[in-house]
Amino acid sequence: MRLARSLAPTLKETPAEAQIASHRLMLRAGLVRQEAAGIYAWLPLGLRALRRIEQIVREEQDAAGAQEMLMPTIQPAELWRESGRYDAYGPEMLRILDRHKREMLYGPTNEEMVVDLARQCLRSYRELPQTVYHIQWKFRDEVRPRFGVMRGREFLMKDAYSIDVDYAGAVVSYRRMMLAYMRTFQRMGLRAIPMAAESGPIGGNLSHEFIILAPTGESQVFYDAAFETIDYTDAGFDIRSADDLERFFGVMTSQYAATDEKHDEARWAEVPAERRREGRGIEVGHIFYFGTKYSKPMGFTVPGPDGRPFHPEMGSYGIGVSRLVGAVIEAGHDEAGIIWPDAVAPFRVALLNLKTGDAACDALCERLYGRLDALYDDREERAGVKFADADLLGLPWQVIVGPRGAAAGRVELKRRATGERIELSVEDALARLAG
Amino acid sequence: MRLARSLAPTLKETPAEAQIASHRLMLRAGLVRQEAAGIYAWLPLGLRALRRIEQIVREEQDAAGAQEMLMPTIQPAELWRESGRYDAYGPEMLRILDRHKREMLYGPTNEEMVVDLARQCLRSYRELPQTVYHIQWKFRDEVRPRFGVMRGREFLMKDAYSIDVDYAGAVVSYRRMMLAYMRTFQRMGLRAIPMAAESGPIGGNLSHEFIILAPTGESQVFYDAAFETIDYTDAGFDIRSADDLERFFGVMTSQYAATDEKHDEARWAEVPAERRREGRGIEVGHIFYFGTKYSKPMGFTVPGPDGRPFHPEMGSYGIGVSRLVGAVIEAGHDEAGIIWPDAVAPFRVALLNLKTGDAACDALCERLYGRLDALYDDREERAGVKFADADLLGLPWQVIVGPRGAAAGRVELKRRATGERIELSVEDALARLAG
Repeated sequence: MRLARSLAPTLKETPAEAQIASHRLMLRAGLVRQEAAGIYAWLPLGLRALRRIEQIVREEQDAAGAQEMLMPTIQPAELWRESGRYDAYGPEMLRILDRHKREMLYGPTNEEMVVDLARQCLRSYRELPQTVYHIQWKFRDEVRPRFGVMRGREFLMKDAYSIDVDYAGAVVSYRRMMLAYMRTFQRMGLRAIPMAAESGPIGGNLSHEFIILAPTGESQVFYDAAFETIDYTDAGFDIRSADDLERFFGVMTSQYAATDEKHDEARWAEVPAERRREGRGIEVGHIFYFGTKYSKPMGFTVPGPDGRPFHPEMGSYGIGVSRLVGAVIEAGHDEAGIIWPDAVAPFRVALLNLKTGDAACDALCERLYGRLDALYDDREERAGVKFADADLLGLPWQVIVGPRGAAAGRVELKRRATGERIELSVEDALARLAG
Repeated sequence: MRLARSLAPTLKETPAEAQIASHRLMLRAGLVRQEAAGIYAWLPLGLRALRRIEQIVREEQDAAGAQEMLMPTIQPAELWRESGRYDAYGPEMLRILDRHKREMLYGPTNEEMVVDLARQCLRSYRELPQTVYHIQWKFRDEVRPRFGVMRGREFLMKDAYSIDVDYAGAVVSYRRMMLAYMRTFQRMGLRAIPMAAESGPIGGNLSHEFIILAPTGESQVFYDAAFETIDYTDAGFDIRSADDLERFFGVMTSQYAATDEKHDEARWAEVPAERRREGRGIEVGHIFYFGTKYSKPMGFTVPGPDGRPFHPEMGSYGIGVSRLVGAVIEAGHDEAGIIWPDAVAPFRVALLNLKTGDAACDALCERLYGRLDALYDDREERAGVKFADADLLGLPWQVIVGPRGAAAGRVELKRRATGERIELSVEDALARLAG
């Protein structure tokens, strides 16, 4: 992507409305622009980060055996009347009348619709278990939207739904999704801790939220350092093995972890002092087992082995995909700007042409641009502006091309996270960035 | 994907509400389910087709130099008041009041929002030209939604917007997008014809719609056979060359092409008889040049070379992405079901295990499944049901594994489009399907 003709406007000033680091930086780096309270347009660089996060979420859902589908954003009110949530949900639900005065709503979540699809499509216990998911925009009409994409009204969520024959199966599905979540966040360069949680408006009696650590997080968290050394990969736990999932779940739930709301000083005191960790955290996911809470009132049954219909056991599993863009930035930034983890950076490399118009600089930059996954700063700006914007945008590597170096076939390579800069030949730079 | 535990419910009966082939087949093949009038959930197989079509659209937009971004579905009414379209748009616009009684709407298109972003982000004529696009769900509250995803209320659209310094530049952007569209549809195995069109609610004075040919299309079309032999690839026209684009536009607009609404018998008579083609067509795209129709009332200016602010010239360019799934099926089906073009099929291969539970069949199928991009029919169903469903689902190839063949290391390979079946060794089948 060539910056000179891109919709990637950086700002020197911090916008007054932005109270937290990720909101400030996303506006300043030109990742998003607000179009209405809590409603954002994703500009090209922001969208690339969003898509990379979305793709990691998708791959780990697929690896856990979940099937991707896509439900619409607009739902009929009748479905929510069947479950009893239409009146219960409150003013956060965006209610809509269509031209025929039919009551509709912009989906804040999809338990009802999944049950409706399942009761239309499934014909036998032999088709279970199944887990489906979709990655779709949701709307929650927050009374006071703020913190940018961290608490927007229109937001991108991955929500999965498991359908099992019985409680034992539902628990395996729940544990499998918990492991998929740990892998998902780890791949994004985040440290996540699952914490026992209230079920809230989803209902049910087993629930965990996933908190990632970030110095500027919204709540104080307390956890056992044991979480830091668990191997969540297949080497640690085979996601297809119910036995491994049981062992994994035991490990997850036997260590102390709590937000300040649920913090228990007595239990905390039992954790060996050298393993006590405190920090700030951000909620990025929430999983629920709720049994037959929706299948019963909505009349979703399938015939069992004995031919008698039964109500399947279900759970739902959410990840805030657009929120994660903000959370990743909260977890990785400094005074100068964003520090993207390699796995979710919009591009791997920022290519800085320090003298656009200089024949040697232009030629070398074009050559590098053809070989790298790079954002090319080809603007007619001073070098100082380009340095500052490159740090603000926070791509993992910067390749800096100046007239003297270009004449000698040399460039500077800077690692954004450490600030380390080295001068090297073009070939060595390419070799390093290919690795 | 294993069919036994997938949300991929085929139907033997044709649903009563479905009047056209694609609607009938999409319901029968389990690609979509309706959740409210004109609002569909995309089940796993339908979503895969939708995503493949979306990806072709994306790649050709990228190749034309357009930048991907993503605007929200919900828009503030104020923007549409600025352009004067809020009151003009009529009941097809889904109007919404949020909890603070602010007027919002579910975007049917995004001219206003793009202008708003451009006036926030662009600071100089030197940043032009730019074309941005997004692929996002739209809502048009049709009074009588019908024909499945061909005329839904919530639908997926790719809409691009060009921003140029002057008319000459805007015309180049318009022509470039026209060529990108011809390539897009050609890659999907469709024959598309651009036809001069009215601008309708978008406005402006240059507009073409893109009609693809399908025996069950909605309107009668008349066109010159010359369209059939034009080379739309880079060999024919370099999409980066303004000269090539001018030549391309000349070729496109000098041949006769019209829907029955605009058909001109006198001009038609001038087309040599052997080159006259008639058929049924479906509109799948529409492009507009509208100059300063939005930049003027919305106060979008940038400083020109002389420092004086001017209103950029703009155009917009739509493709009905979800509609294309229906259009592709209208263009490719027979009595037995869908015939997917290779480029957009949900999977390349249907793998039919004719005797699930037979050790040789199961083992061979597992081996093939590990090597192919396949939908594996591992259900406990009769062979006849599997044959019928494979033809209904319409994947390009069927690999048929029966007990006798499995014991001998042989399978049957069927090409869905021609019905041709051959028996061959497992190795030969794999070699053929790899090609």
